[in-house]
Amino acid sequence: MTARAAHDVVAYDPSSFEGLQFHRAVDAFRSGTDTPRDYLERCLATIAEREPVVRAWAFLDEEGARRQADSSTGRWRDGRALSPVDGMPIGVKDVVETKDMPTEYGCAAFSGNFPRRDNAAVAALRQAGAVIVGKTTTAELGGPQPPATTNPFHSGHTPGGSSSGSGAAVGAQMVPACFATQSASSLLRPASFNGNWGLKPSQGAVNRGERQAGSTAAHGAVAACPEDMWHVAIAMAGRAGGDPGWPALRGPGDLPPAHRPFTVAVMETEGWPDLDPASHEAFEQVVEQVRAHGVTVLRREDAPVERFERALVGATALTTSLLAWEYSWAFRPVYEANPQGVSERGRQFFLDRADEMGPAGYEAALQEQNVVKQAYVAVSGRVDAVLSPASAGPAPAWDPDVPAAAGVTWPTGNPAFGTVSSLLGAPAVNAPLMSVRGLPYGVQVMGRHGDDARVTAIAHWLREIVTPVVL
Amino acid sequence: MTARAAHDVVAYDPSSFEGLQFHRAVDAFRSGTDTPRDYLERCLATIAEREPVVRAWAFLDEEGARRQADSSTGRWRDGRALSPVDGMPIGVKDVVETKDMPTEYGCAAFSGNFPRRDNAAVAALRQAGAVIVGKTTTAELGGPQPPATTNPFHSGHTPGGSSSGSGAAVGAQMVPACFATQSASSLLRPASFNGNWGLKPSQGAVNRGERQAGSTAAHGAVAACPEDMWHVAIAMAGRAGGDPGWPALRGPGDLPPAHRPFTVAVMETEGWPDLDPASHEAFEQVVEQVRAHGVTVLRREDAPVERFERALVGATALTTSLLAWEYSWAFRPVYEANPQGVSERGRQFFLDRADEMGPAGYEAALQEQNVVKQAYVAVSGRVDAVLSPASAGPAPAWDPDVPAAAGVTWPTGNPAFGTVSSLLGAPAVNAPLMSVRGLPYGVQVMGRHGDDARVTAIAHWLREIVTPVVL
Repeated sequence: MTARAAHDVVAYDPSSFEGLQFHRAVDAFRSGTDTPRDYLERCLATIAEREPVVRAWAFLDEEGARRQADSSTGRWRDGRALSPVDGMPIGVKDVVETKDMPTEYGCAAFSGNFPRRDNAAVAALRQAGAVIVGKTTTAELGGPQPPATTNPFHSGHTPGGSSSGSGAAVGAQMVPACFATQSASSLLRPASFNGNWGLKPSQGAVNRGERQAGSTAAHGAVAACPEDMWHVAIAMAGRAGGDPGWPALRGPGDLPPAHRPFTVAVMETEGWPDLDPASHEAFEQVVEQVRAHGVTVLRREDAPVERFERALVGATALTTSLLAWEYSWAFRPVYEANPQGVSERGRQFFLDRADEMGPAGYEAALQEQNVVKQAYVAVSGRVDAVLSPASAGPAPAWDPDVPAAAGVTWPTGNPAFGTVSSLLGAPAVNAPLMSVRGLPYGVQVMGRHGDDARVTAIAHWLREIVTPVVL
Repeated sequence: MTARAAHDVVAYDPSSFEGLQFHRAVDAFRSGTDTPRDYLERCLATIAEREPVVRAWAFLDEEGARRQADSSTGRWRDGRALSPVDGMPIGVKDVVETKDMPTEYGCAAFSGNFPRRDNAAVAALRQAGAVIVGKTTTAELGGPQPPATTNPFHSGHTPGGSSSGSGAAVGAQMVPACFATQSASSLLRPASFNGNWGLKPSQGAVNRGERQAGSTAAHGAVAACPEDMWHVAIAMAGRAGGDPGWPALRGPGDLPPAHRPFTVAVMETEGWPDLDPASHEAFEQVVEQVRAHGVTVLRREDAPVERFERALVGATALTTSLLAWEYSWAFRPVYEANPQGVSERGRQFFLDRADEMGPAGYEAALQEQNVVKQAYVAVSGRVDAVLSPASAGPAPAWDPDVPAAAGVTWPTGNPAFGTVSSLLGAPAVNAPLMSVRGLPYGVQVMGRHGDDARVTAIAHWLREIVTPVVL
């Protein structure tokens, strides 16, 4: 055995963990007892303290953030705040372009890439007054090859991916919220592992600007509380709209009020057998609390749920196959120009699989996707939401300083639970209501396409009624 | 009046004009009596002769083309041709990326832009063995500000836009086919003005790779004959597939056999009042020939056609509003970084209109689009195809050496006829079957989404049965 430094461990208790809640700070900005600049300085102090171990940032722009925060300070003082996120320090996952910072996609082939333009969602966040602190780390090209980021609650565990830095920065209380994205489980899984609230919006609900290559991809938000999560999502969609041809995320300007569902279904996914007993038990305790509040809970014995579960067999491979083919057209030229600049795992995941599929394989995968969507219609039409674990237990152990072994398929964790909403184009929220072995672990609330506000309202209700489970 | 050089005029007669027909050359490639390299050299000689006036090329790569043609020569000789377009000299509209040539979008702000990667459709064309001769000119950013290209049949007239160089290069017999794109009427209008066959495929039918910002945009092909047009389209879609999430263009490997429709509808669009009498008469003579072959022709007296026509009032403004908003997220950062690098007309078209719309205006426009699509369902379900002029008459006079007057809204011609298929996501083919005042003028055949092969087969049938009209 190799000698190891002791790990940084911060035991997570969802009952007491609060994180940074920006929405609670704005009254003080108005009254002048606090300012966005001071808020930012506290964030930067935390970053300075924890970044050496957490490694959540691909790029930090402290001076730019200070200038933005000073502008915001003036706006709040003068009663001219642009939005509820005016002055909010935000990290932006390094898979979208930013005019004042490099965009490197966690990929050596993009080292130094600096196109000097803002992605649509970033432009919208700036219009809303958000303070872009920096770019958060991502798994390479949004795929399975992890960055060096560690879990803020235990540095010997993964923060998940591909939105690794966004999840970890919020979990480490470096910033109240981050921009994140998901094509498979890249937002919900890190949200679950880092104790974030996270919204993976409906397909098309937030304008992805130049990032349109993936049909299952979505721009979303992670935050320490649902209020900030919702404010960030609405700030983007309310200004940049939806994807080309799609309606934008709809809903109130503030967090949708808590909404008790009449009926929910529990989704097991093909990840169910991978749940360890404590994670299984923690989730069942949440479901029992929901049932105790008079909610009808459908399980697999219900025929449409069973048919949907059967359709989900192979859903992870199906989703990742779709995105491999789709992104291969963007990534193959990058690889061909610089084969050393893409990891072997990344090449296998995106390019080798695309080669195996070919256009006919891709169309067959689209048809399989339609079968799953049809099976979901029969469930989603009968319930107000679908509940499931957001990940196959809390973050697995992983050491960023040991090069990821070739045999490890998912160094950032099993994606089975978080992938389904991407395959369906459905909205999903991670509610961080559980702790297992001292690590965060989330409940996923999934709805029908366009039901973003409703699933957020139901997740909000869960926060109201569920006593967090610690196992 | 300023003194003017005499114009280059080549009177166009659709009965005798053949252009370059690559599909007729391949038997000689097999037998060795001709080679792709010799074919290319003849193209380059024509380019050298006509380019000083036509100005169809933004960039030429003669040496690269020669190398590609030599490779193709060997493949045909050895019986290993990769596809029917192996060795075909092709121009690529300068709105998509090419790894070995700059990509400048007809826009000063992109001067020298050279991202060294191939768009998905370009990669597919290379896989099929096509010889990429160069980049063809485009109206700035695909918008209304024209390039210096002239019409190959009369240098005092526009070649149309935004696929100006693609249309003109085929019309000037410089190359047999070009890659072209359309978000409004950017492929069908230049096809009509330059005597091209042109296919604007169904929404999503050809993978646009990194060019996904426009919901109405499509990758397509223009050629001197329907055989080459179809071969180019199938070469792209058969390798790169459809857009992310969309099925690819379907159909046979060779031109779909001529297919006589039972019923067609004539579409007038809001451009009908702008038809000059000769253009109107030429189109009616084509319709009469179709009717004489036993085809039922529905006109405005038919109630669903009338309702559809009423829904089309404002369709041009609606389509261009949609694309202005959508592209503004890509183009605004370009403009903000370099305001002098974008024309006033381009800024007004894309950015000022997007500012006026806002996200709510965009969503209202999407709803209007749905109304038009619904009105089309009632027509398209009753007919095999819709026929209309492909443009409001032949190419209008225009002088590229006089800076376009601010008062001219459409220096590349009225887009009303060509825009409709983009708004609907429907496939459309331009069949160059008319000549008015010595200039080419096309008939448009439009179908239902996914009917690309059928509309091509019906356009093929038109070529078989229509005696071209010269007025």
